[in-house]
Amino acid sequence: MATEIRRLTFENESANELYIMRDDLLPFSMGGNKVRIAQAFFDDMKHKKCDAMIIYGSRHSNLCRVLANLCFCRGVECVMICSHEEQEDTQATNNTCLIDWTGTQTVHCGKNDIAQTVERVMEELRAQGKHPYYIYGDKTGRGNEGTAASAYAEAYAEIREFEKKQGWEFDYVFCPSGTGATQSGLICGHLLAGDRKKIIGILISSRETKRAVSVISDGVGSYFEKNGYALSEDYEKEIILRDEYRLGGYGKYDDRIRECIRTQYVLNSIPLDPVYTAKAFWGMQEYIKANALHDARILFLHTGGTPLFYDFLAKEGAGNTRC
Amino acid sequence: MATEIRRLTFENESANELYIMRDDLLPFSMGGNKVRIAQAFFDDMKHKKCDAMIIYGSRHSNLCRVLANLCFCRGVECVMICSHEEQEDTQATNNTCLIDWTGTQTVHCGKNDIAQTVERVMEELRAQGKHPYYIYGDKTGRGNEGTAASAYAEAYAEIREFEKKQGWEFDYVFCPSGTGATQSGLICGHLLAGDRKKIIGILISSRETKRAVSVISDGVGSYFEKNGYALSEDYEKEIILRDEYRLGGYGKYDDRIRECIRTQYVLNSIPLDPVYTAKAFWGMQEYIKANALHDARILFLHTGGTPLFYDFLAKEGAGNTRC
Repeated sequence: MATEIRRLTFENESANELYIMRDDLLPFSMGGNKVRIAQAFFDDMKHKKCDAMIIYGSRHSNLCRVLANLCFCRGVECVMICSHEEQEDTQATNNTCLIDWTGTQTVHCGKNDIAQTVERVMEELRAQGKHPYYIYGDKTGRGNEGTAASAYAEAYAEIREFEKKQGWEFDYVFCPSGTGATQSGLICGHLLAGDRKKIIGILISSRETKRAVSVISDGVGSYFEKNGYALSEDYEKEIILRDEYRLGGYGKYDDRIRECIRTQYVLNSIPLDPVYTAKAFWGMQEYIKANALHDARILFLHTGGTPLFYDFLAKEGAGNTRC
Repeated sequence: MATEIRRLTFENESANELYIMRDDLLPFSMGGNKVRIAQAFFDDMKHKKCDAMIIYGSRHSNLCRVLANLCFCRGVECVMICSHEEQEDTQATNNTCLIDWTGTQTVHCGKNDIAQTVERVMEELRAQGKHPYYIYGDKTGRGNEGTAASAYAEAYAEIREFEKKQGWEFDYVFCPSGTGATQSGLICGHLLAGDRKKIIGILISSRETKRAVSVISDGVGSYFEKNGYALSEDYEKEIILRDEYRLGGYGKYDDRIRECIRTQYVLNSIPLDPVYTAKAFWGMQEYIKANALHDARILFLHTGGTPLFYDFLAKEGAGNTRC
């Protein structure tokens, strides 16, 4: 599993060079960072001798799409717990439709009922003689942070490989930060390589910042512990999470995001979505300006979510006078 | 430019092995065979010292999407001539929306007015001091067949490279056949390599079969002539075009195609669209059964068109009780 890194057209006056890593093109289930992360969960499930997978996410969840698909392909039972914000639009998305195609049972719950829903589904599966595996660990979503982090701890080698070929190192790597798994993994890779680059996560949800940093820290800690690596005491200073670009929270966006999506499609022919990648890309551009970065080599990790790009297009483009 | 070839899960009792070449993942403008073909047209335009591009297609056109994007990125003026069938649904598609984002001027016309529309647009551009290039040659769409064919004549080397690594040769290559450019190119590659495999095109439109074969033949002839290669007199016997799987013509489909799209998504996690790739994939499966192919190594060329997969999903999946 490896994807292309290439340079993008990037208008700026500060001689920065922008590159992109196209993990949206990973060749499974419409691609994205969740292809790597889902594989890590699946392997962990097998390792733990479990035979049924419980997945969790919103109706925009790319991870649930990939896990549902992976479980179908491997003949493993899969149940999705889908949480909803209050007063949220409940219309089906491309991801919910693709999940539905796999025959995955979906259990809906409110944002405050996740733990008890996980517990109930676990018990139901056990009553059927199954050994269920909840991707996030215990019912409160803790205990399996290291597994998710391992995906990008390993993918980091591809960035190093590219740098080696170029004969230079990136100064910055930007990525969307939602669950924190991708950023945790990249930080693990960075710490293990002992290189000098900065990994900057753009928080895309309304998760409390201190909590988000703590989740990333747990991911790094768990991965190091699981693999028996020594972790320096001050590793938390490597966690750079910017929370000023979330624009109202998960799934919320405005004209700046719309403009970013259109511009990056026509200029660099890449699809960005309003929930994750466009917000992170726009946030990166704002960060570059606000911090006057110059003469820097910058990598944007395209974490995928192409089905959400097409949700956006269907809503705001095709069939709509705005197109 | 190179894409992955990998083996697919394929249920059959005749020990056939099915492989797929993921040209839908080519990393430009949502991918597809048209990325290679558009590049060939663009290079030819430059070679001919032209500075404005006239493109032609329907509202489902993947080629127009990619060419509009390429022209935008390279700062070349682009005009799209969009033809409509009588009584056709004229709703915008993902492709028309993406074309619109690039600011490409679109001129609409009926199926019988294409030549005169091409001529009028050519004259208008010349009056502005431009040197226009019509991708298909003269106003009747002839004279540039060899350019389009060159894309897959060259891509054929990637198939050969894969075979070399495996130590065996494919027995069959299947692809959708619409304009015929992709199939022409593959046949050129096959003839130049002098290998034994069969290239089978699945006709996806209501184009008259004899005419479709003649267009493919012209493509092969032009490519060989353009490059000064000797063409054997009986080369037309290599043109295998199956017209029994078109299901009513361009863009038409039924439950067999719906089922094929769902099955291939969940089983092999690939997106197929009802206009091109699903029809070809289903046609290939039917051909394998009807001709009792066995113990064969078969390659399906995934020619892309992912925006049409999402058009399908929006129409028949998300937001619809069928999902």
